[in-house]
Amino acid sequence: MRIEERTAASPDTIHLNPQLKRMPPRRPTRQVFLGPVAIGNGAPISVQSMTKTSTADVDATTKQIETLHAAGCEIVRVAVPDQRSAFALAEIVRRSPLPVVADIHFDHRLALQALDSGVAGLRINPGNIGSRDKVEAVVRDAAQRGVPIRIGVNAGSLEKPLSERVERGETTRAEAMVESALGHIRILEALDFRDIKVSLKASDVIATVEAYRLLAGRCDYPFHVGVTEAGTITTGTIKSAAGIGILLMDGLCDTIRVSLSGPPEEEVRVARRLLQAMDERQGEPVVIACPTCGRITIDAASLALEVERILESVHEPIRVAVMGCEVNGPGEAREADIGICGGGGRGILFRKGEIVRRCAESEILAAFREELDALLAERDKE
Amino acid sequence: MRIEERTAASPDTIHLNPQLKRMPPRRPTRQVFLGPVAIGNGAPISVQSMTKTSTADVDATTKQIETLHAAGCEIVRVAVPDQRSAFALAEIVRRSPLPVVADIHFDHRLALQALDSGVAGLRINPGNIGSRDKVEAVVRDAAQRGVPIRIGVNAGSLEKPLSERVERGETTRAEAMVESALGHIRILEALDFRDIKVSLKASDVIATVEAYRLLAGRCDYPFHVGVTEAGTITTGTIKSAAGIGILLMDGLCDTIRVSLSGPPEEEVRVARRLLQAMDERQGEPVVIACPTCGRITIDAASLALEVERILESVHEPIRVAVMGCEVNGPGEAREADIGICGGGGRGILFRKGEIVRRCAESEILAAFREELDALLAERDKE
Repeated sequence: MRIEERTAASPDTIHLNPQLKRMPPRRPTRQVFLGPVAIGNGAPISVQSMTKTSTADVDATTKQIETLHAAGCEIVRVAVPDQRSAFALAEIVRRSPLPVVADIHFDHRLALQALDSGVAGLRINPGNIGSRDKVEAVVRDAAQRGVPIRIGVNAGSLEKPLSERVERGETTRAEAMVESALGHIRILEALDFRDIKVSLKASDVIATVEAYRLLAGRCDYPFHVGVTEAGTITTGTIKSAAGIGILLMDGLCDTIRVSLSGPPEEEVRVARRLLQAMDERQGEPVVIACPTCGRITIDAASLALEVERILESVHEPIRVAVMGCEVNGPGEAREADIGICGGGGRGILFRKGEIVRRCAESEILAAFREELDALLAERDKE
Repeated sequence: MRIEERTAASPDTIHLNPQLKRMPPRRPTRQVFLGPVAIGNGAPISVQSMTKTSTADVDATTKQIETLHAAGCEIVRVAVPDQRSAFALAEIVRRSPLPVVADIHFDHRLALQALDSGVAGLRINPGNIGSRDKVEAVVRDAAQRGVPIRIGVNAGSLEKPLSERVERGETTRAEAMVESALGHIRILEALDFRDIKVSLKASDVIATVEAYRLLAGRCDYPFHVGVTEAGTITTGTIKSAAGIGILLMDGLCDTIRVSLSGPPEEEVRVARRLLQAMDERQGEPVVIACPTCGRITIDAASLALEVERILESVHEPIRVAVMGCEVNGPGEAREADIGICGGGGRGILFRKGEIVRRCAESEILAAFREELDALLAERDKE
């Protein structure tokens, strides 16, 4: 059972301490749908990513979408830079387990073809596709099909007059991004199209945060949030967790993308762990682990990694504490469904801080597996 | 030249776009000193970590402190759980290139011995060390030596009456943490001791953030910020970047610790990258890298990792963009001191968006090294 279903259907099966669930309220927004996935107006914050294959290669792209789906991705975007990619879309959409968003720049014919292929969403900036005729053709078709449009402003590709004003110091980068977004929004609104979500990405965390904060007060469209060109896996994870984390705490995220120079499924893993860390996903296991200090006698770091690996196939809200010493371990593991503690050749397992089992230190992972199975079986009975 | 020196001494050598530097103002606080390192009242946000060796093992601990120092750590904490560790302190302090903080629980004699060993700081909760006599002995000695005390409240080890109130739902975890801190603060203030910093750590990001936000309005002591027992390297990085990132954006961090179940130098790397991502450290290279998409034809992820590796020895504020395609690359790399772009067997290097060099794709890293050397040489001349 997926967490959302579980949360919705049977709140009494959520075992986490309610004190832990304290996210501030979300910004009220309109709601748009990407296929079956609702975005905004209180819908669960969805995780999205983008394929890194050539879109024209249907098999490779579909395979990557399946990998993303398995990792917990909920919406997938594909770049549509040319006719060959656009031709591939229909088959990709047909085979994709996820709603597909076509990412298009400049060429309105690619957008029309994407719509004709049955995509669930478009990412296109209407101010960049030419004459009013062309914009109207795309927007009418999207409206008829009920396909939302994401306006995706990127600090690196602002309209020239705006970027020049930033360079002259007449405005901040964040204000320029917001102005750019409002320009695109006005074009769509003039055509009575409001099935919109907006992103305002910079590679700079502060500019990204400021831009979303500014726009939050100036429109009620849901936000797709991310830090762009965030960098390598480590640096990108840090920048994304900080930038998206701040905006999650502000209640401004409706759907998120973590951008990493790396495999897209890694983006999804980071995004899901971030949502979970911010209490936005309670249906997945949480592993807390002590940072270890001069007191430890076991390798808590490796143990925690092993525990995380065991839990990868579990989609239940289970809280596991891996503690390196017997002194603080039990107390600090009090809120854990299962706590593991080791040292001096001995292992101890806890449930909610109560010792339930002792074993040799070398058997602690096996004991953990058994205790986990027992816990899951108990929950299934409930 | 280290960045702080450079920033202070020669602001005109900072080459980053000033638009990027937009951190909100810091919360006004008192200032304390850990050895030469100022904390609070606008001092640069310092990075700290904790050794994971046995403190009684002077050689191993000193070696780890040196590794931490090389990674950019500015303050180091060591656990002092027993007499043997306390005896080792004097030699560790003598050999440490960093100010040493002794982390002590319950036993006031260990605190006195740590002070006698010349530690730069104590982490001890005065409410936990027993009778007023014992507290007074420690506080007087610390005051005479000018050694600050960190009150370190941990959600996992709150005083029993407070944790029971949380369990009964009479107060939130964050409020209980703040109440605990204020209790310890009152004990020190009653002894006219105000050389204090405070931490309020939970393994839960939201509770951590809420606690610091609450206490910010109720005292003017500087904050040591971190998320405790954050988890394995990936999960811990995500939780720390989100939690500390939010509090950096709030202007509430004076010194930070990233807690990871992993090597402590990794904590320092993550902390420094986070500060840099939040524009708090401008003296180190920044690598931005495109997340790659269906348009790319080169392995931008590996290229970005290689570039990061080359830059590890450079402590200059250099902005490098690694872009996967020739289409958006140049525009998006406009603000980079050096941009690299490749595809179709060809490589291009940019300076501030202007093409300065073309080469074969296979030679792009060699060309980057040369361009980097040239840039550093130019800056040295300035």
